[in-house]
Amino acid sequence: MVRAYAATAPHAPLVPHEYEFGPLGHDQVEIKIQSCGICHSDLSMIDNEWGMTHYPFVAGHEIIGTIAAKGEHVTHLSLGQTVGLGWYSGSCNTCKQCMSGDQNLCITAEGTMLGRPGGFATRVRAQGSWVVPLPVKLDAEKAGPLFCGGVTVFNPMLQFGVKPTDRVAVIGIGGLGHMSLQFLSKWGCEVTAFTTSKSKEAEAIKLGAHQTLNPTDAKQLAASAGKFDFIISTINASLNWDAVIGTLAPRGRLHIVGAVAEPIPVTIFPMLLGQKSLSASPLGSPQTLATMLDFAGRHGIAPITETFPLSKVNDALDHLRAGKARYRIVLKNDLE
Amino acid sequence: MVRAYAATAPHAPLVPHEYEFGPLGHDQVEIKIQSCGICHSDLSMIDNEWGMTHYPFVAGHEIIGTIAAKGEHVTHLSLGQTVGLGWYSGSCNTCKQCMSGDQNLCITAEGTMLGRPGGFATRVRAQGSWVVPLPVKLDAEKAGPLFCGGVTVFNPMLQFGVKPTDRVAVIGIGGLGHMSLQFLSKWGCEVTAFTTSKSKEAEAIKLGAHQTLNPTDAKQLAASAGKFDFIISTINASLNWDAVIGTLAPRGRLHIVGAVAEPIPVTIFPMLLGQKSLSASPLGSPQTLATMLDFAGRHGIAPITETFPLSKVNDALDHLRAGKARYRIVLKNDLE
Repeated sequence: MVRAYAATAPHAPLVPHEYEFGPLGHDQVEIKIQSCGICHSDLSMIDNEWGMTHYPFVAGHEIIGTIAAKGEHVTHLSLGQTVGLGWYSGSCNTCKQCMSGDQNLCITAEGTMLGRPGGFATRVRAQGSWVVPLPVKLDAEKAGPLFCGGVTVFNPMLQFGVKPTDRVAVIGIGGLGHMSLQFLSKWGCEVTAFTTSKSKEAEAIKLGAHQTLNPTDAKQLAASAGKFDFIISTINASLNWDAVIGTLAPRGRLHIVGAVAEPIPVTIFPMLLGQKSLSASPLGSPQTLATMLDFAGRHGIAPITETFPLSKVNDALDHLRAGKARYRIVLKNDLE
Repeated sequence: MVRAYAATAPHAPLVPHEYEFGPLGHDQVEIKIQSCGICHSDLSMIDNEWGMTHYPFVAGHEIIGTIAAKGEHVTHLSLGQTVGLGWYSGSCNTCKQCMSGDQNLCITAEGTMLGRPGGFATRVRAQGSWVVPLPVKLDAEKAGPLFCGGVTVFNPMLQFGVKPTDRVAVIGIGGLGHMSLQFLSKWGCEVTAFTTSKSKEAEAIKLGAHQTLNPTDAKQLAASAGKFDFIISTINASLNWDAVIGTLAPRGRLHIVGAVAEPIPVTIFPMLLGQKSLSASPLGSPQTLATMLDFAGRHGIAPITETFPLSKVNDALDHLRAGKARYRIVLKNDLE
């Protein structure tokens, strides 16, 4: 019997929930969960903000655990091995995207908590190919958030060829941004943290930023005109995007990983004169996850986490809803 | 004495105009003009649409001619040599962009007709480094438009690594689009022409398109969902951009070279799921011009032009204003 916490309605506390899995698929593994991070998208799904939640709903997709069972076709993982699982838990492995190493862009990629129960539970199942061994250098208690928030900000550095010589900026110093600062500074870049929070400025510097900038201050933006080769935005809110684009250097890129609801109005003339780009991307492929974990291990990069027992998941969610998480919450499985 | 036609007010006919150049700069050349193409941006400047026109104004920046004089530091061009000159006529040649081969992104790049008289004239001057020899394979009578419209659509193919295996689309089959179709089909791509004009469909196929699509027809757009690796938009008008972005394949790019006045509202979620990009770019560097001319010569790519004598420039402008140009007008210098 799998023990879990499930949402039964938007904004309602999660409640204990139990279920059995069916037979294990040939290509699947079952993970005994040690811990699971909480992501803003867990809240969005719990509250049915995207109109696609079916209740009872078990959230959670930043999972660390050990292989408890594996299907007969899974040859690269062993029983008891410590692994991680993120947003995606399966892909077709035959389409152009999958065959090109872009499994995260597979049109039929399956979500760990979409149409199946996620990681706020004692066990979870996934396609073996999406389950990635955790390097021993990484602290299993903190590593969960790398599998969603971490790879979301790391993947575009690979995809778009961010160079160690680049001047870069991170918009929003939260669950994603605080990892992005670490990755980019260890990558060798000159890093600026865009934050409206006075209290986060010193922390941003500690995480690797060389300076901070308040993106709601038109003067500060103007003083950085034409500066950045790469800006990654992790926020969900709107900004003065034209002014942000104005801080891009020629050939610069504004890359969005926050699910901004409002369309971003892009004025073309400045984009055209400077050959600028706007882009966005989702998470990363299994190999990108492995590459990120290797890089994080080499450089001591880790999410800053606060730990709650899974049985106190509602306290943890209240903490996140109140905007108090510094910076990522991890639920420790105390049910099994 | 240089003889030219100049605008003296928005929307007024051009009038004969004469002037002398000062001493020739060490790094400059003087070109005896054979012909000069007309671009929509000539009209925009004549009519002061961008609020930066000083009258009297001599338009023209798609220039073919011969070297009539050269400064002492110009060593790569010879007197009498047939050359071309496009939108840019100078850059600092010392900044990061210039030193990286991105002279077209130089912040202080000078326009051929901005702050100096352009190509609707018997002579024009420019920095030698921006003057590019015309390969003998190319027809000098038709080549002018390659130096602005041509390089505008060719440059992004180099900048963004369009591959011969790509599925691509061209939005707008006009002065720029009709050259883009040729470049992309000779590049090896599968090419779709987006046009709302029934009369241009057969012509688009002749120019290298494999099929056409009406971008105002929601059904046709929906039938091409997820198809294109690269879309280049040459139009100034607005479209249903979300639907256009919907026709991009994963990793696809919508690239804008038309100076669209209205901001393009980009809905982020579909961009994010498919790792899509929106970008824009201006013309190309001198080396990109040379590379384009070489490619055009090898493949017999040429603008389709209508020729007017320079002395009939007002007839030519009326023809363009009426939307009747098929596809690019060239003025032949009959004043000298």
